[in-house]
Amino acid sequence: MNVTYTPRKRFTPEEYAESILKGDRIMLSRAITLIESKLPSDVALAEKVLELILPYTGRSLRVGITGVPGVGKSTFIESFGGLITGMGKKLAVLTIDPSSQRSKGSILGDKTRMESLANDPMAYIRPSASGATLGGVNDKTRETMLLCEAAGYEVVLIETVGVGQSETTVAAITDFFLLLMLAGAGDELQGIKKGIMEMCDALVITKADGDNVNMSRMAAREYQNALRLFPAHDSGWEPEVLTCSSLKKEGLEAIWDVIVRHHELVKKTGHFDAKRMEQNIAWMNEIIDYYLKYDFLHDTEVEGAMDFTSHMVESGKLPAITAAKKLLSLYRKKEM
Amino acid sequence: MNVTYTPRKRFTPEEYAESILKGDRIMLSRAITLIESKLPSDVALAEKVLELILPYTGRSLRVGITGVPGVGKSTFIESFGGLITGMGKKLAVLTIDPSSQRSKGSILGDKTRMESLANDPMAYIRPSASGATLGGVNDKTRETMLLCEAAGYEVVLIETVGVGQSETTVAAITDFFLLLMLAGAGDELQGIKKGIMEMCDALVITKADGDNVNMSRMAAREYQNALRLFPAHDSGWEPEVLTCSSLKKEGLEAIWDVIVRHHELVKKTGHFDAKRMEQNIAWMNEIIDYYLKYDFLHDTEVEGAMDFTSHMVESGKLPAITAAKKLLSLYRKKEM
Repeated sequence: MNVTYTPRKRFTPEEYAESILKGDRIMLSRAITLIESKLPSDVALAEKVLELILPYTGRSLRVGITGVPGVGKSTFIESFGGLITGMGKKLAVLTIDPSSQRSKGSILGDKTRMESLANDPMAYIRPSASGATLGGVNDKTRETMLLCEAAGYEVVLIETVGVGQSETTVAAITDFFLLLMLAGAGDELQGIKKGIMEMCDALVITKADGDNVNMSRMAAREYQNALRLFPAHDSGWEPEVLTCSSLKKEGLEAIWDVIVRHHELVKKTGHFDAKRMEQNIAWMNEIIDYYLKYDFLHDTEVEGAMDFTSHMVESGKLPAITAAKKLLSLYRKKEM
Repeated sequence: MNVTYTPRKRFTPEEYAESILKGDRIMLSRAITLIESKLPSDVALAEKVLELILPYTGRSLRVGITGVPGVGKSTFIESFGGLITGMGKKLAVLTIDPSSQRSKGSILGDKTRMESLANDPMAYIRPSASGATLGGVNDKTRETMLLCEAAGYEVVLIETVGVGQSETTVAAITDFFLLLMLAGAGDELQGIKKGIMEMCDALVITKADGDNVNMSRMAAREYQNALRLFPAHDSGWEPEVLTCSSLKKEGLEAIWDVIVRHHELVKKTGHFDAKRMEQNIAWMNEIIDYYLKYDFLHDTEVEGAMDFTSHMVESGKLPAITAAKKLLSLYRKKEM
């Protein structure tokens, strides 16, 4: 019996692009899978698709959402997402969890987490596959966002877990950064990476319902005071603190209003476009840095010398600068 | 007439090392100049000196000090430094100002700023020359610190201006990070780079004298509350807030006590040694990253394509990933 290999049906870059631009969700999902693939032929194809759709990207409002596990991110996105689609806006939700394997192919998992949004024809939910990461975030999240924009999604929510490095990267690819917090006793920031609070454009105390309402309001005041200690953002925007109940769908409109108000301000001042341009260049530089270091670390001679050299430096027996130059000269030698 | 070139007297690495270990200030200064030099022959010599003195380094208490201009850093270092040398400890003060040309050869300038310390035989003051920087800090500050340690300085204060990136790097090469602040009206953190407050091991309100005493105490309480919102440091250390008057020499002993208490804690928990080891490796990696990017950016083909490619990416006409890979392939081609 002949065993024949039946390749997966492959589309041309033009077929992908056209279908995506028409809003075809299945082709969008296939293109994202292509973007996430490590197969050289997929990578080349994905880049062609990206180039074709690029002129149709950039028009969504990109919102990063973070918060520690337990803060109620899923419920918040479910309710807040419903508000957005209820206004007639197409919404894409990208979820990232670099710290665990949970999201690996857990499309069903995420759809269960956000059941009504998953059944909402105006919403598209996509978890980022685990894998190679740049700065702690799946290195394809940015490209996935571009594909969603080309498919006509007007708001993209990018969710992170709030305990890793991913927040910095998410803040670096979004227009608005939302930090979800719980009202608690004094140490509310436990588990939140240092510096995240200053990055946020708005801080929302979740679960402000029932017995929790008063405590949430107090926490909001406390955070508002704490945020005032930090310098205003370059745009002049002063981060706002709000409370909400995802369960009772209270306070969600006010959050959307803040996002819109921020958007109007930064559009007017020119910070919106400037930030987007900076983000594009920064992303290019991150990719370059990543591969330069990758090439270096995977050089046979560098690999052979790295352990011993690192040990010598760590224990203070070799100056860092001498060690660095020795490794660099091993690397450069090969090039000549 | 024959014009003969008389070279500057050059010493052997062994001569440098021996004199430095004996505490010879003139040879220490010469070695630092060597470290800061960009002449290939100087660079090679400096690295030899570094290797020779390395076994005698690492035994100082390394303290980073930052604060915005006007906070009174010079007066503070003058008074605090006097307290340290008064206890019989040899003190080195390294000053950094990456944002201006002020420090370029301004040894006299810095000595005027800190007059009594400059005349103190137990103190050695050295401004970092402007020039090539890694992460915003003169890339030789770390090596200069090592030379000072070999010369027997038991405390090294590294001063930065508190408005640039240098604080992160200084925090990355010191054991204790001290943030100086003024009591003010609500926006005390204006001008302080985001995230600096969370990096500090102690925050000191300066100029707490005369009419300013009450306001300083209030500010201290406010900052103590704000700092509580941030997670404790890995070592378990909780940053302390103090007030002082450099002019009246009040509150300085309490600051030294905090530094000593912190040192005892991190020594006991093992965080001191772990941090030093991490710092060594991190420094090696920074140097490697710097030169990898330097080689890349100075590649003829990359240089030729960079402007146009950046422009295309910035304006959203070329995906960042495509641009990065195009530039990388130009660079790699040369290597084959």
